[in-house]
Amino acid sequence: MNAVLLAVGNELVCGQTVDTNSAWLARRLVQRGIQTLHHQTVADDRAAIAEAFRDAAGKARLVLVTGGLGPTADDITRHGLADAMGVGLETNDAALAELEAFFRRRGREMVPTNRVQATFPVGSRPIENLRGTAAGIAARLGEADVYVMPGVPHEMRWIFENRIAPLLPPAAVRIAERTVHAFGTGESDVGAKIADLMARDANPTVGTTVAAGWISVRISARADTAEAAAALAGESVAEIRRRLGDWYIGAGEDTMSSVIGDRLRAAEKTLAVAESCTGGLVGRMITDTGGASDYFLGGIISYANEIKHRLLGVPEPLLAEHGAVSEPVARAMADGARERLGSDYALALTGIAGPTGGTDEKPVGLVYIALATPTGTAVHRHVFPGDRAIIRRRAATAALNHLRLHLVRRMGP
Amino acid sequence: MNAVLLAVGNELVCGQTVDTNSAWLARRLVQRGIQTLHHQTVADDRAAIAEAFRDAAGKARLVLVTGGLGPTADDITRHGLADAMGVGLETNDAALAELEAFFRRRGREMVPTNRVQATFPVGSRPIENLRGTAAGIAARLGEADVYVMPGVPHEMRWIFENRIAPLLPPAAVRIAERTVHAFGTGESDVGAKIADLMARDANPTVGTTVAAGWISVRISARADTAEAAAALAGESVAEIRRRLGDWYIGAGEDTMSSVIGDRLRAAEKTLAVAESCTGGLVGRMITDTGGASDYFLGGIISYANEIKHRLLGVPEPLLAEHGAVSEPVARAMADGARERLGSDYALALTGIAGPTGGTDEKPVGLVYIALATPTGTAVHRHVFPGDRAIIRRRAATAALNHLRLHLVRRMGP
Repeated sequence: MNAVLLAVGNELVCGQTVDTNSAWLARRLVQRGIQTLHHQTVADDRAAIAEAFRDAAGKARLVLVTGGLGPTADDITRHGLADAMGVGLETNDAALAELEAFFRRRGREMVPTNRVQATFPVGSRPIENLRGTAAGIAARLGEADVYVMPGVPHEMRWIFENRIAPLLPPAAVRIAERTVHAFGTGESDVGAKIADLMARDANPTVGTTVAAGWISVRISARADTAEAAAALAGESVAEIRRRLGDWYIGAGEDTMSSVIGDRLRAAEKTLAVAESCTGGLVGRMITDTGGASDYFLGGIISYANEIKHRLLGVPEPLLAEHGAVSEPVARAMADGARERLGSDYALALTGIAGPTGGTDEKPVGLVYIALATPTGTAVHRHVFPGDRAIIRRRAATAALNHLRLHLVRRMGP
Repeated sequence: MNAVLLAVGNELVCGQTVDTNSAWLARRLVQRGIQTLHHQTVADDRAAIAEAFRDAAGKARLVLVTGGLGPTADDITRHGLADAMGVGLETNDAALAELEAFFRRRGREMVPTNRVQATFPVGSRPIENLRGTAAGIAARLGEADVYVMPGVPHEMRWIFENRIAPLLPPAAVRIAERTVHAFGTGESDVGAKIADLMARDANPTVGTTVAAGWISVRISARADTAEAAAALAGESVAEIRRRLGDWYIGAGEDTMSSVIGDRLRAAEKTLAVAESCTGGLVGRMITDTGGASDYFLGGIISYANEIKHRLLGVPEPLLAEHGAVSEPVARAMADGARERLGSDYALALTGIAGPTGGTDEKPVGLVYIALATPTGTAVHRHVFPGDRAIIRRRAATAALNHLRLHLVRRMGP
C-alpha cells in the first residue's frame, strides 16, 4: 500500500510555518508498512487544492491531508475536496450538534462562521475530533481513501491515532524502530564500528545522523509480528551498544541527564555544579530530568570573578596569576563547590563562549572542565567549535559526559 | 513571477528528517516579491524526480530544488533532471578540477564515487559551492529557470544567497518584514489591540502567532523601494509598540535576555539569581546574551533545602513552617542572593515543575517568583500550565519579565 501526503495552508507555502505534520504522519505510516510516495504543500486556493486531491488520488491508495478545516474564510480544504469529488457541501446534523455542544461545554458562544465546520462534501463523512472544533473528513476519491485532518499538530495526532489508524489495513509487515544515542566522537568513527550493519538491504536497516555533537543511530527492524520485530531491533541495539563502548550513552528516551541521574541514584551519591561560561546550563540540563532532587544538591553560578572567590573560595592570587579561564581555577571551582555544597561529586566549567573575549592563547571555545570526586579532581581542556550557543551546549554536554565516564569506570557499564 | 519548490530525499519522504529548506527558501522568495505556488517532497527515485521536474516547470517560471547532489548511489537528482531535459550527463572539467582542489585543501583523498559530483546534464551549468563538495546546477527546462542546490542547510543557504539570488529578476515590489515580540498576555488580547491593523489586504499585512507564552506579531510591508518598505514597516512596529504598552518586549533579534541586559547596562546595575525549580535556566537565559558579565554577577542553584539554608541564608524554621515552595521562602531566597552576591537586583524562583510532587494545595506548575531591589522585595505567585519543560521555561521567562517591568517603571519605556 502507498500514500501521498498533502498539507494545506498559505502559512506553509510562504514559509512562515514549517510543516512538521507530514513527517510525523510519514513515520506513522512507515511503522504500518505503508510507503509514502511524496508530500505536497499547497496554498489556500480552491482550484489548487482540488487539483492536488485529484492528482494524489490518481497516484496512491491512501491520501492523508492536514490543514484548512478552520472556521475562517481562508479555510477551504473541504471546498477543494468537494470540487475534486464533483459534489457540493451539506450540513451534517450530528456534527453540528457536536460543534454546538463543544462551545456550550466551554461556556463560549458559537459564532455563525463556525457552522461551516459542520459541512462536508456529499458522500463523505465526519471524523470525530475530541481536541477541537474542526472535525476531520473521510471520503472516497477514485480508488483512494482520503482522510482530512486539522493542521493543529496535537489535534491532528489525536485524530490520526484514535480515529484514522484503526481504519487502515493491518500492516503486512511489522516494523520496530529504535534510536541509539552516542557522544564523545565523530559520525565517521561510529560508522566505522558498525559499517557491516549499515548495508542498504539489511534487516534491521541501520543509519546514522549527527547534530550538535550527538550521533543518532537509527534502527528499523521488519518482521511478521510486532514481537519478532521488537526482538530483532533489541538485538541490534545490544550489538551496537557493545561495539560503541564508552560512546554509547543510551537509547530511546534516555538523555545524558537521565543516564547520569540513574547512576547517581543507584550509587547513592550527590552532585553539585560550579558554572561560569555556561551560566546555569549544566544545572538546567541535570534538572531537566524529574526527580533530580534525589542526587542534585545545587550549584553556584560564578559569572563574576568576585563570586568565584567569595562563594567558591577560589584564591584571588590564583585568579590574578592564571586568569579565570585556566586549569587551576577550574580545579579550585570544582573543589570549592564540592566542599561548600557538601556533595560527593562536583563539576566546574570556566571558558570563553564568545563572541568576544578570545585571544591567541585563549581562543573563543576554550573551556576547562573539572570533575571533583572523593578520590581526586581531574581537569579536562577542550576547544569547542561553533557560535556562543553551540559552544555552551557542547561544553555542558561534555562536562556531564566526563562525570558519566567516571561513573561507568567506577560502577561498570 | 511564481515558483515551485522541490525537496528530494528518502529521509524527507519517510519523515526521518523535517524539510526546513523549503520554508526558508519560500521566505526569501516572499521578500523578493516571488510567489511560491506549492512545495513538493519526492523520494530518491529517478522517474519520480524527473516527473516532478517536468510538472514543476510546467507550472512555474522558477523551480528551486534541494537535495540529492551527494556522492552516493542514492543521490540522483542530477539524473532525474537530465531525464526531464531529455539529455545525458557530461563531466564538467572546471567543476572536476574544483572538486579535486577541494579535497587537496583538506588533505583528503578523493574517492572515485565523488566524480559524479562533477557531472551535469548537457546544456546545464554548475553553480559554485564554497561550503562543500556538491556544486549546484542551473538549467532551463521549458519556460522555467531551474536551480538545484545541495540539501545540507548551510550549504543550500550559502549557494542561494551568493550564487542564485543575484540571478533572479529584481523584485517589482520590495517587501520589508519585521517581527514584534510580546509577552505577559494572551494572543486574543494582543489581537484586540491591533485588530484594525490585521485586515487581509492591508499594507503592511499584520498577523499573530503564539508559542510557549510568546506572541509574535509579523509585519510585512510592500513598497516600490526597499527604503519605502522599511519605513512603512518601521512605522507599523512603532504603532504596535505604542498599543501593546507593557506587553511589548522588543522586535527582530531582541530577546527578553538582551532587552534586560541593555537596561541593566544603561542603568549600571547588577543582577544575581537564586534558582530552585528552574535549576539554572534563568542564569542560562541571562547569559545567552554575549557581554552579560557587564551586569550579571552569578547565582545560587539551591535545589536542596539544605542549600537554600546554607548558601542563601533562608531560615530553617521558615522552610519547616511554610515549605520550600512558599511566598516567604521565595522572598528570603531573593534577599539572600542579593545580599550574598552583592548585587543591585536578585531574582528567586521556587516551585513545583513536576511531573510529581504536586498536591491540592500546591499543584504542579505553582511557582513563586521574588524580585529583590534596592527599595524592597516583591513576590509573585504563578500557576503555569504544561509539562515540566514548559513550566520551567514559562517560569524563567516570567521571572525575567518581572524584572523588565520593574526596570521599565523605573526608567521609562
